[in-house]
Amino acid sequence: MKHISLLGATGSIGIQTLDVIRNNPEDFRLVSMSVGYNIVEAKKIIHEFSPKLVSVLKKEDCEALKVEFSNISVVYGMEGLIEVATHPQADVVVTAVVGSVGLMPTLEAIRARKTIALANKETLVTAGHIVMKEAEKYGVSILPVDSEHSAIFQSLQGEKRESIERLILTASGGSFRDKTRSELSGVTVEDALNHPNWSMGAKITIDSATMMNKGLEVIEAHWLFDLPYERIDVLLHKESIIHSMVEYKDTSVIAQLGTPDMRVPIQYALTYPNRIPLAGSKQLKLWEIATLHFSQMDFERFRCLDLAYHAGKVGGTMPTVLNAANEEAVGAFLANKLSFLQIEDIIEEALSSHDAIQHPSLPTIQEVDSFTRDHVKSLITKRG
Amino acid sequence: MKHISLLGATGSIGIQTLDVIRNNPEDFRLVSMSVGYNIVEAKKIIHEFSPKLVSVLKKEDCEALKVEFSNISVVYGMEGLIEVATHPQADVVVTAVVGSVGLMPTLEAIRARKTIALANKETLVTAGHIVMKEAEKYGVSILPVDSEHSAIFQSLQGEKRESIERLILTASGGSFRDKTRSELSGVTVEDALNHPNWSMGAKITIDSATMMNKGLEVIEAHWLFDLPYERIDVLLHKESIIHSMVEYKDTSVIAQLGTPDMRVPIQYALTYPNRIPLAGSKQLKLWEIATLHFSQMDFERFRCLDLAYHAGKVGGTMPTVLNAANEEAVGAFLANKLSFLQIEDIIEEALSSHDAIQHPSLPTIQEVDSFTRDHVKSLITKRG
Repeated sequence: MKHISLLGATGSIGIQTLDVIRNNPEDFRLVSMSVGYNIVEAKKIIHEFSPKLVSVLKKEDCEALKVEFSNISVVYGMEGLIEVATHPQADVVVTAVVGSVGLMPTLEAIRARKTIALANKETLVTAGHIVMKEAEKYGVSILPVDSEHSAIFQSLQGEKRESIERLILTASGGSFRDKTRSELSGVTVEDALNHPNWSMGAKITIDSATMMNKGLEVIEAHWLFDLPYERIDVLLHKESIIHSMVEYKDTSVIAQLGTPDMRVPIQYALTYPNRIPLAGSKQLKLWEIATLHFSQMDFERFRCLDLAYHAGKVGGTMPTVLNAANEEAVGAFLANKLSFLQIEDIIEEALSSHDAIQHPSLPTIQEVDSFTRDHVKSLITKRG
Repeated sequence: MKHISLLGATGSIGIQTLDVIRNNPEDFRLVSMSVGYNIVEAKKIIHEFSPKLVSVLKKEDCEALKVEFSNISVVYGMEGLIEVATHPQADVVVTAVVGSVGLMPTLEAIRARKTIALANKETLVTAGHIVMKEAEKYGVSILPVDSEHSAIFQSLQGEKRESIERLILTASGGSFRDKTRSELSGVTVEDALNHPNWSMGAKITIDSATMMNKGLEVIEAHWLFDLPYERIDVLLHKESIIHSMVEYKDTSVIAQLGTPDMRVPIQYALTYPNRIPLAGSKQLKLWEIATLHFSQMDFERFRCLDLAYHAGKVGGTMPTVLNAANEEAVGAFLANKLSFLQIEDIIEEALSSHDAIQHPSLPTIQEVDSFTRDHVKSLITKRG
């Protein structure tokens, strides 16, 4: 029996994590969780899973829940998130909150020696050097939940580090994979949210359409698997059946495949190093799919990926700028304040106006993050 | 430094094994080897690799080599093969002889506690129950050299037995994959020897065209990985890029991919559990291949595969009959004494006239093997 702490229970990954817990009551128990604004959903989860500790975003929601659920602890804000992440009974902390808010609770969970099931990209993108160092120091495993990193992690099992030649992250190409750059100028939020393979949250679906999602994954892979950017490749594979691959020194390639279902990597992170049947999952029938397609990544077509490689290679605070600028620009696009192609313009502008600070401390990262967001907001206002 | 004993040095796998040894003089040394009739090639190998012990098929070749190479031991026949397989300095024995002749030396190598790099299908097909039991008893690893079994073996690294759902062997379809059954009646030996993906010996190339090769691989996989036939599938995949796969309980599939190059699985068996660069090997570029195709196996079109599953499920001496009948029938086809489709007729006839003996001893296996060959020869004579 593993006790699970879930950060971000009402998001896409959170809901699917709960589904895995629901289907395996003898293997998993939800001990603590955090939600944001979605109190209606939070109440349903509390009724079903009876966690011991719940954290919400706002104090008033906290007070209301305390009255309604007198038998559980309810906390709020960043302190609440950290309390959930470090719950004494938790074995595994699933960090499924979106955005930079995931960083502090993840670090505290590591220091409390919890196994981390990492579903929050920004943690490694902005503070990979700090997080991986702390994980090593406390002997904590960081298990990737993202399908691509899980695929690489699965493809690395039983292999030695020095045998690795390179990682190959596959990319579906997102909602607009068949559009040329000129066709991208007029696309709407609704178009962008219509991802062909995966059912995900809004922010990550837009990131998938701009290919920034893959860019953040490349940076994440750099930290998770400790390889230079020159040995991390991206391959277009529109069916999303091969979730990613590892090429070894002898040219042998190990890959993980499956029907697109986020519950597979989520459950794997929870059962690792074991595997258990996944209720309701669909067996991969390659003869039904019949054909898998692959093509080379076009860095001019997908400029955000190029920007991400650039930011990753520069390192230091540059990926923080990339991430903060992207979050703000995507938010503005979703609010119809920016066009689709302006997302990359804004990010590029933010990157080119920043002088990277190497080996930044957490306060420095937070400062750069805030500064970038303000800077990007002013850039957006000027354009709008 | 691993010391290698190579059974069948002048065959297709033998030559490629020597290439791997040649390219890694600091990792491998050839200490003993066997050859058949090809004494010209044997002399070249002796000059280049200076093995300590060489076995040939015929006594007169043995005598002649003794005179020419006074500094090495030369032996012959089955005793010679066994001496090569059990050479005191050998760490790994590569069993690359074709046919049932590989069985005894492999068993003796196991009893001498040598690691087995198994490239001889018939060993497991006819005596899997004996070989695997001996390997367990002596604590010996059987490392598959066949590309499909190597792919499965690689895809099993770091995983637990109980996590396995099924094995998926891929099949290129062989030389005649695009032909209908009626088109197969008139095909020639030359047509059959023209395999689209792999460069292999004549016997295995014909087996690939009849799909008996895949059938023998299914039986081999049953023994190597200790799974029932119901959990071993075959999938048509004409590009031979995914060499085989393992499906796990959580629907996750791990696969091994690469450009078709037998030196990859050969070298992996020699370096296991490590990997080293493979000189002259070609990196897999999936974007160049662009498309991978998959389709379901048609057991009516490929009747030999159906016969192999049948023989495997019946068990006992039935796979020995399958293998002996196939060897004789393929030999007759190569000698233009049978048509292509008569190969399967002959095998079916041999199988249906045999009452399987369960848990056969080695003498029983050998008796059934001899009887089947005589029986098949008479069947062929009658038809011819």
